[in-house]
Amino acid sequence: MVLTSVIVCLCGLFILPGECHPESNILVVPVDGSHWVNMAVILKELHSRGHNLTVIRSPKSYYIPEKSPIYTSISMKSLEDEFDLSFYDRMLRCHLEYRRSNRLLRTIYIQADMARMMINGHDVLTRAVKLMFEDQVFMSMMRNTKFDLVLTDPGLPTGVFLAHHLQLPMVFNVRWINMGDSHFTFAPSPLSYVPVTGSELGDKMDFFERTLNMLVHISQSLQYYFIMEPNYRELLDRYFPPGTDLLSMELTADLWLVRADFVFEFPRPTMPNVVYIGGFQCRPAKALPEDLEAFMQSSGEHGVVIMSLGTLIAALPKDVTEAIAAAFAELPQKVVWRYIGERPSTLGNNTLLVDWFPQNDLLGHPKTRAFVAHGGTNGMYEAIYHGVPVLGLPLLFDQFDNVLRLQVRGAAKTLETTTLTSAEFKEALQDVLEDPLYREAMERLSRLHRDRPIEPLDRATFWIEYVLRNKGAAHLRSEGYRLPWYVYHSVDVALLLLTVLFLSVWMFFTVCRLMLRMVCKRKTKVE
Amino acid sequence: MVLTSVIVCLCGLFILPGECHPESNILVVPVDGSHWVNMAVILKELHSRGHNLTVIRSPKSYYIPEKSPIYTSISMKSLEDEFDLSFYDRMLRCHLEYRRSNRLLRTIYIQADMARMMINGHDVLTRAVKLMFEDQVFMSMMRNTKFDLVLTDPGLPTGVFLAHHLQLPMVFNVRWINMGDSHFTFAPSPLSYVPVTGSELGDKMDFFERTLNMLVHISQSLQYYFIMEPNYRELLDRYFPPGTDLLSMELTADLWLVRADFVFEFPRPTMPNVVYIGGFQCRPAKALPEDLEAFMQSSGEHGVVIMSLGTLIAALPKDVTEAIAAAFAELPQKVVWRYIGERPSTLGNNTLLVDWFPQNDLLGHPKTRAFVAHGGTNGMYEAIYHGVPVLGLPLLFDQFDNVLRLQVRGAAKTLETTTLTSAEFKEALQDVLEDPLYREAMERLSRLHRDRPIEPLDRATFWIEYVLRNKGAAHLRSEGYRLPWYVYHSVDVALLLLTVLFLSVWMFFTVCRLMLRMVCKRKTKVE
Repeated sequence: MVLTSVIVCLCGLFILPGECHPESNILVVPVDGSHWVNMAVILKELHSRGHNLTVIRSPKSYYIPEKSPIYTSISMKSLEDEFDLSFYDRMLRCHLEYRRSNRLLRTIYIQADMARMMINGHDVLTRAVKLMFEDQVFMSMMRNTKFDLVLTDPGLPTGVFLAHHLQLPMVFNVRWINMGDSHFTFAPSPLSYVPVTGSELGDKMDFFERTLNMLVHISQSLQYYFIMEPNYRELLDRYFPPGTDLLSMELTADLWLVRADFVFEFPRPTMPNVVYIGGFQCRPAKALPEDLEAFMQSSGEHGVVIMSLGTLIAALPKDVTEAIAAAFAELPQKVVWRYIGERPSTLGNNTLLVDWFPQNDLLGHPKTRAFVAHGGTNGMYEAIYHGVPVLGLPLLFDQFDNVLRLQVRGAAKTLETTTLTSAEFKEALQDVLEDPLYREAMERLSRLHRDRPIEPLDRATFWIEYVLRNKGAAHLRSEGYRLPWYVYHSVDVALLLLTVLFLSVWMFFTVCRLMLRMVCKRKTKVE
Repeated sequence: MVLTSVIVCLCGLFILPGECHPESNILVVPVDGSHWVNMAVILKELHSRGHNLTVIRSPKSYYIPEKSPIYTSISMKSLEDEFDLSFYDRMLRCHLEYRRSNRLLRTIYIQADMARMMINGHDVLTRAVKLMFEDQVFMSMMRNTKFDLVLTDPGLPTGVFLAHHLQLPMVFNVRWINMGDSHFTFAPSPLSYVPVTGSELGDKMDFFERTLNMLVHISQSLQYYFIMEPNYRELLDRYFPPGTDLLSMELTADLWLVRADFVFEFPRPTMPNVVYIGGFQCRPAKALPEDLEAFMQSSGEHGVVIMSLGTLIAALPKDVTEAIAAAFAELPQKVVWRYIGERPSTLGNNTLLVDWFPQNDLLGHPKTRAFVAHGGTNGMYEAIYHGVPVLGLPLLFDQFDNVLRLQVRGAAKTLETTTLTSAEFKEALQDVLEDPLYREAMERLSRLHRDRPIEPLDRATFWIEYVLRNKGAAHLRSEGYRLPWYVYHSVDVALLLLTVLFLSVWMFFTVCRLMLRMVCKRKTKVE
């Protein structure tokens, strides 16, 4: 046993610098889709440092492979429904219609959209978690494996329930949770300068915008307390100690690895057990496949425009696709467009359609001039890392907020995807391509983003191993999570002090009045 | 010029790893006394990395040398009064008297004490800063030197005024500011789990303690708004744009290097432009001078107790000193006591009195068993770093809070310095020496404190150079500091929404009443 440890340690020295760790068993409960792309990067790193990984997936999962050299997977039948992609498709189609409304209606619609998604998603999730807990074979395997840690994306709280049930330390790889940005869960967030997710607001707000921000926040809190919480109530009552609620379960996480960087995110309060790892998946570009490299080089001095909508690759309506293809055809640049679907009739000779491309390597290619994107977080950080200005075509969720963050910093332009015309698209893209300010702004963000004492992926692995080494990190977690809301906000103390103040003032005036009356009486007597 | 840069850069490569920087001019405005001990460590590091340092000091300063190989000093005559140590002495003498009162009276007294210190200190400071601004020679030198950065401890805000006047980026090396712990200045701090400085409270508080915490906070806020602010008003009106106030000047700092670590400090909200460097002055122990080493070795298996009251070395009343010496004399351990004053008559042969010792090296010595200390921040971090349990004799300021932080973690015991008897002292010290739980708790803190991806001193220099490289770090600063209080706390928005809610409810009931009345009328008519 000692010998094994020594060998592992020695190997560790040659594989990667850093502290020496005995092997540990990590249970990984990821969120499927684009979130998995992130998690996979961390898992690869953890595997190379000698940790044993077990990943829970749905047998239907398109993104999470069943067989992998770096982890053992468990396909939980009960999670099947959870990752039905057609659900997003249907939502997107409705959503695109409503984007044509005015500002206030749009915000209301987005909120309603999120509520609908939550009702549907969390209902599926509750059933899935119940089936999981009822699965005796699965649960006894979980208990017998002696996991040291649960690494999970709490965007969907399956991992939170499981970690609590197994009483294991818990590390989050997180951006969104319950009420939008995870900061709203773990840190006090003044609504005067912290824009709520889905509000499409920045951190400089006028009175109207602050009111809107507050309303969106109230709406999201109501969604949490009246939709999410009741949804999980039965599950919680059945499998957890009385009084347990989802929020305080989440707040017991030992560490929050938050996929954010304040070059992109607006500065806001945070907590000591939060580690920022935004852009950890970005890396210097590798060589492209030969044919793609040849295409890039053929662009000459004009360079290349890259377009991708990430996992929403097939989401655009036909008229929008045609308009974009027509605009591309008129550019002197070449275009690489990640696209699935009917070939647009207006497609020019300068445009290459592919169903997948190595996005990070393309963005880091010296010929790349601009990135047309839907504004998914991964893509935005890759664009920042490589300093490529963005033309945003946001479609869903946080994508509007994401593109806004680059826009207010002068590094991106946004179009209303549903209503764009070919001329509008061409003008906006030409602007991003030709106005040097966009590239300069993006290069500045890139410089700031890369100026860090330790790479975000190393930070992530360091802190995961920190929790392993120290069997948790409770000393970094504030006491706030234990408190009921009226204690947390000192409502009881404020009421006491106000009462005392009121009584003191009242007594003072009563005494004054009595004394005045006595003086008056005496005067009358004397007279 | 280019050649010089290249040489500097090449030298940099061999002196210290890290990024290559052109020389820069840093203006340093320190706080004298124990705060300088910290600042000097950072300055040494910055000097070794090729930066030019200019330090502003008082000609009377005992701690800050006029001549130094690492910096150029400017002795500002106007700052003379500021560092009158007898002021602390007088205060201490009063303070010790009042420590004998009960809990509530004691807290009130400490607050009154702080208020008195603030009135006195800030009055002196205002005069000093005015004289500085009026000194044409000094000010034109400041303007002509082309500083790149002001590095200051805002415990006394001289550097804040100067940086703003010169419009330079500003980095704080800070722990205390205005209303106690600097977190109260820069981050939302819920009073339900964030104890106020001087409250002697932890982060787990009952209703009475939370009320006390709130009262202390209110008192400190009143002190700021009714003592500090008016004190600086004339200065601000004369030298700064209208509407400038001290708090918002401080909040424009690009970076806060906070001398805290959450192994010691209670976890609480923080901000993105805050970097924790608690314990950055600690380093592995170096060999002791021969005679001291011989004394340490002579202790045999029992080991040595170290005692120091830091800069308050001569502060203890005679009866307390005698009691402590008598208790020491009865121990099987040897004692090294940093002491100035009349030799106690009860002193034993096992006790060595010295007027100075290399504290860090002594604490890191394998023979050291316990540390009797006043609870100054520097000493507490050195004790944590080397894993030596503490017996606390707090005297002033934050020392009560500091010792409490180790005590609640099982790594220290505290005595009421003013009332201690020889027997009490001996019993407490024996407890710390003989109960292994104290050492185990301290060793656990030490392990956690040392478990970090980058050394705190490297972190400090990295971030100072980050601000130099990027000419500030405004993108890490939240927008909160620009907002008036009623906007910051969304009072205006809340009033609007409450009004709308109230009107809606009122209208609803009015319409209901009208309809009911109409229905009733119609009924009466029909009848």
